[in-house]
Amino acid sequence: MATIEKLFQPVQEKLDDTGNKVTVVGVGQVGMAAVFSMITQGVTNNIAMVDVMADKLKGELMDLQHGSAFMRNVKIQASTDYSISAGSKICVVTAGVRQREGESRLDLVQRNTDVLKIIIPQLVKHSPDTILIIASNPVDILTYVSWKLSGLPKHRVIGSGTNLDSARFRYLLSEKLGIATTSCHGYIIGEHGDSSVPVWSGVNIAGVRLSDLNQKIGSDSDPENWKETHTMVVKSAYEVIKLKGYTSWAIGLSLSQLARAILSNANSVHAVSTYLKGEHDINDEVFLSLPCVLGRSGVCDVIRQPLTQTERSQLHQSADLMAKVQAGIKF
Amino acid sequence: MATIEKLFQPVQEKLDDTGNKVTVVGVGQVGMAAVFSMITQGVTNNIAMVDVMADKLKGELMDLQHGSAFMRNVKIQASTDYSISAGSKICVVTAGVRQREGESRLDLVQRNTDVLKIIIPQLVKHSPDTILIIASNPVDILTYVSWKLSGLPKHRVIGSGTNLDSARFRYLLSEKLGIATTSCHGYIIGEHGDSSVPVWSGVNIAGVRLSDLNQKIGSDSDPENWKETHTMVVKSAYEVIKLKGYTSWAIGLSLSQLARAILSNANSVHAVSTYLKGEHDINDEVFLSLPCVLGRSGVCDVIRQPLTQTERSQLHQSADLMAKVQAGIKF
Amino acid sequence: MATIEKLFQPVQEKLDDTGNKVTVVGVGQVGMAAVFSMITQGVTNNIAMVDVMADKLKGELMDLQHGSAFMRNVKIQASTDYSISAGSKICVVTAGVRQREGESRLDLVQRNTDVLKIIIPQLVKHSPDTILIIASNPVDILTYVSWKLSGLPKHRVIGSGTNLDSARFRYLLSEKLGIATTSCHGYIIGEHGDSSVPVWSGVNIAGVRLSDLNQKIGSDSDPENWKETHTMVVKSAYEVIKLKGYTSWAIGLSLSQLARAILSNANSVHAVSTYLKGEHDINDEVFLSLPCVLGRSGVCDVIRQPLTQTERSQLHQSADLMAKVQAGIKF
Amino acid sequence: MATIEKLFQPVQEKLDDTGNKVTVVGVGQVGMAAVFSMITQGVTNNIAMVDVMADKLKGELMDLQHGSAFMRNVKIQASTDYSISAGSKICVVTAGVRQREGESRLDLVQRNTDVLKIIIPQLVKHSPDTILIIASNPVDILTYVSWKLSGLPKHRVIGSGTNLDSARFRYLLSEKLGIATTSCHGYIIGEHGDSSVPVWSGVNIAGVRLSDLNQKIGSDSDPENWKETHTMVVKSAYEVIKLKGYTSWAIGLSLSQLARAILSNANSVHAVSTYLKGEHDINDEVFLSLPCVLGRSGVCDVIRQPLTQTERSQLHQSADLMAKVQAGIKF
Repeated sequence: MATIEKLFQPVQEKLDDTGNKVTVVGVGQVGMAAVFSMITQGVTNNIAMVDVMADKLKGELMDLQHGSAFMRNVKIQASTDYSISAGSKICVVTAGVRQREGESRLDLVQRNTDVLKIIIPQLVKHSPDTILIIASNPVDILTYVSWKLSGLPKHRVIGSGTNLDSARFRYLLSEKLGIATTSCHGYIIGEHGDSSVPVWSGVNIAGVRLSDLNQKIGSDSDPENWKETHTMVVKSAYEVIKLKGYTSWAIGLSLSQLARAILSNANSVHAVSTYLKGEHDINDEVFLSLPCVLGRSGVCDVIRQPLTQTERSQLHQSADLMAKVQAGIKF
Repeated sequence: MATIEKLFQPVQEKLDDTGNKVTVVGVGQVGMAAVFSMITQGVTNNIAMVDVMADKLKGELMDLQHGSAFMRNVKIQASTDYSISAGSKICVVTAGVRQREGESRLDLVQRNTDVLKIIIPQLVKHSPDTILIIASNPVDILTYVSWKLSGLPKHRVIGSGTNLDSARFRYLLSEKLGIATTSCHGYIIGEHGDSSVPVWSGVNIAGVRLSDLNQKIGSDSDPENWKETHTMVVKSAYEVIKLKGYTSWAIGLSLSQLARAILSNANSVHAVSTYLKGEHDINDEVFLSLPCVLGRSGVCDVIRQPLTQTERSQLHQSADLMAKVQAGIKF
Repeated sequence: MATIEKLFQPVQEKLDDTGNKVTVVGVGQVGMAAVFSMITQGVTNNIAMVDVMADKLKGELMDLQHGSAFMRNVKIQASTDYSISAGSKICVVTAGVRQREGESRLDLVQRNTDVLKIIIPQLVKHSPDTILIIASNPVDILTYVSWKLSGLPKHRVIGSGTNLDSARFRYLLSEKLGIATTSCHGYIIGEHGDSSVPVWSGVNIAGVRLSDLNQKIGSDSDPENWKETHTMVVKSAYEVIKLKGYTSWAIGLSLSQLARAILSNANSVHAVSTYLKGEHDINDEVFLSLPCVLGRSGVCDVIRQPLTQTERSQLHQSADLMAKVQAGIKF
Repeated sequence: MATIEKLFQPVQEKLDDTGNKVTVVGVGQVGMAAVFSMITQGVTNNIAMVDVMADKLKGELMDLQHGSAFMRNVKIQASTDYSISAGSKICVVTAGVRQREGESRLDLVQRNTDVLKIIIPQLVKHSPDTILIIASNPVDILTYVSWKLSGLPKHRVIGSGTNLDSARFRYLLSEKLGIATTSCHGYIIGEHGDSSVPVWSGVNIAGVRLSDLNQKIGSDSDPENWKETHTMVVKSAYEVIKLKGYTSWAIGLSLSQLARAILSNANSVHAVSTYLKGEHDINDEVFLSLPCVLGRSGVCDVIRQPLTQTERSQLHQSADLMAKVQAGIKF
């Protein structure tokens, strides 16, 4: 085109690569909140989106691209074909079917396994060095399933796990204490959702353990009923879903944080679902959340928190349940 | 509570104010994309949301609050009561009803005017020094309506206008030219939507006017058919709506950019819907988009672009239409 | 000027205020690192600089202004006259004379008190609602002096204190542990410099106290010699000064963090020098560092860390020394 | 160490790479301002510094590392040995000797060439795929020298050139016009420094050319004397040096912007010193600044600005001078 030829003296081919490509599979509410968090927070400037719904996918692509003048050099691509994901440093999987009324947990897991059977091998084929972050629910089992289907080493398959539960916990603590969420420290571990385990012994402000100030904290006999804070965390997801129909922003931001830790090789600590055999005497090949050091190679270390007997047994109960459900999955 | 008393020695009451409070009215897709853009891009850390749908509102509030550990000191509030908006530097209005099948433009305007009759006085009552940014459609007329209802001086009532059309235009130019959107300069002015006017004479890369390289650019007789770029801008909104059901991300980012310009007292230039009587010989009190200098006091200057006869007459046509519709509104 | 009149249609006067003005007194290495940190990290976009060296001041002003195209809407002013500081939310004081060879501590304090006698009343006169952050050394005593000279309530006079010592400590921990500095938690309190106190009982990773894994940590009898980490913190400042002649970047970033906490009303926790009478049974009106909750009103709470007997007595020793030196100052 | 073993369950080796490593050679005022700009602005989180002055280098390293708690996952290394630079995507060269009193330009160039003879081959040896950004003065000739010494293709050797002059120009325009620097568009091209060429025909606000409003703009006969703005740009560097002894912040930010454009593969447009043979009928192998498209492969395109006869002849004059000086260099 004449105008372009008049404007530019070409010197060298442009490159596609930015070294921080992230693919998000599934452009539902969670997937889109993750994408939007990552590009507005500057976690990556190279996003690929994959979904089976071509129309929705193209609509989201165009809407994001139209906003590119308001962001910093963002490249966004989308396709129903997984080749678009080639060369991704991270693949975030948010796709999956929802529980039908009356459906058993195992049936749900099986249906989602069947979905992942299509997704995971395609992702690994196009990005053999990728790290997988699984956000589909039930996240712990589906992270195990993704690990099995991917053939990847265990440090490169991560479930979003209780990173979100921990964030909700810290927000509720901050409300109670009247200080910044970022100054409230505490972890929820174990299974994402109803059976999650708050590690009260580690909850601290400026290194001051709340359990040193209130030794019954988190227990049934605590007159101040801090236990309710964890109860509210568990109820939160249900309540948000009841109120607005789904959860999106907080899980999107959670996924964005995990992606940043990995892409920036931060070696920062986050509660994510990881391969647990051998930790806290767990004997099964299950994935549950513990605080992990995340960097460019994925999970680099698992933090060994001293757990109370109660915390430990709750963790084992979840592990047993995982193992049982996993045993019934048809790969 | 004993634990808290043991932990803290109170010194001084906490303050609520951060000096950059923004209220968003309407928590539909546009409102939420605006809120999420503003908090993830660090435009403000003090958001209030208002809507009539209490459930949806509370759900969105909780979902955002749960993400506060992933952001920097964000305070988010929501209520169906406008008192929550008190002290806002900016109020963004995204609420409004959609066009019914077969409904005339005037009928739609009247129905939305009736909605704004409730919203605008409440906002001004609780934040008498606020700046209003109107995003509800048809945006130019509703900005006029909001100005009338608010009693505010004209520089403090701004319509999101063609800031988004200009961003879409720049994205499409960047695709055609193979360079960054932020290095493609050009403005679309006039009425937001179908009758918008691309100012081809100002389209430039590094100060090089494309119209100097191709004098027919933008015209029907241009062999390179650059006009199509504007046509695609106009079609874009329809296409995104057809594909995903609504537009959200780009308009949310556009509103975030305008809010940043004002809050940071940037005095930067943006195409927004502003009071036009006296500009380009327009004689009616209408709001249409021209490039404006935006700062802490709202619209500080309107940029006087030299327009071609065609551009000028398109602008006048829109102004006449606005005036006609406005004449029929019952306040 | 004709060109400007042709270009702009004025609508409304521009405002000066951005609501987040910060004044920095002293444009030496520390002051400039603080200014540059605050504007590149987006802590404020409205900086005033004051110094007695008019030439140096103007040179720094011009150099920063020349960079404004590379930042986001930054307004920078400078003058030898304090009226330039009017309306500051925060005033950071980095000015002061250095210790002469053979000079006693008290003589140094007196000379710097004489400098502050000029600075502080001017700052308070032009910004009666300001918060003072003192960085001049010896910082704890000079914060006390500034408080006395200012007549401000104690929550609005803050010394940069051991926020930097704590950051150095966390960096050294991160090096030892191989994880992110931001995931290493620990506080150094008390007097900034040689007599600072590391609170080993609060040092933790993901809520796991290192003192639970190694009960002798920080003590002389620790076979792993973690105490050395604190020794290195103390030696750090001297070493950097020996190597490059002064310290600048880390203290500049520390001041930027404190300013951000206040301006954004974060209510986040930082170890800063604050009025200590009544804390940990200290009976004198001295300023030393403890973890404090910082927000828009300054110090909102002091965190009550449980201290060991050793930590406590070190703190008291510093307090006694402060009181003694303070008693000799001529105001 | 026992504590560490108790704390961590190792899973996988940590990686060094973040994919965005930048080496800065020379830790004087310019080099350090560039490093500090890049890490505070989030351009890279992986910096290596090289200098011959081991003490100064270690001091700067420690000072930056001590600030790592205030930044996001920054890795900083330094050594007098170039092996520390291995794997850099970009190497910024700020080292060089200053003009001695009475020294001829050629003598200065020769002395700096001798310095570059040591630096450039080492950088290329350890990072054969790197892009070089040269900031040492006289920058245009030394960019040519670096290109010759490196053996790299011409699109991968870039001089910081008039990117800074253009920024100063835009700042001065913004002061005159009362609007944001980022909304003032204009380029200074050619030789960095006294002989630089302001392209008045491209100076515009929102696409409105100032030369359309004032046809004599920039000329000697302009009654509004806009020419003075360019004169002030030229004088600026001298004035800052006279006032504070050196320039640092603005050139540091300029280098940070260029590094960001390349690392983020932005394809954005910047005036940088590039290989010019063939452009604007220049016949010599010289490096001068023109607006260039910068991306991950370096200079991708040169923008062809239409120049006036005067602008053109100024450019040719500089090119002739460059060629003459270059002819005298002993490689």
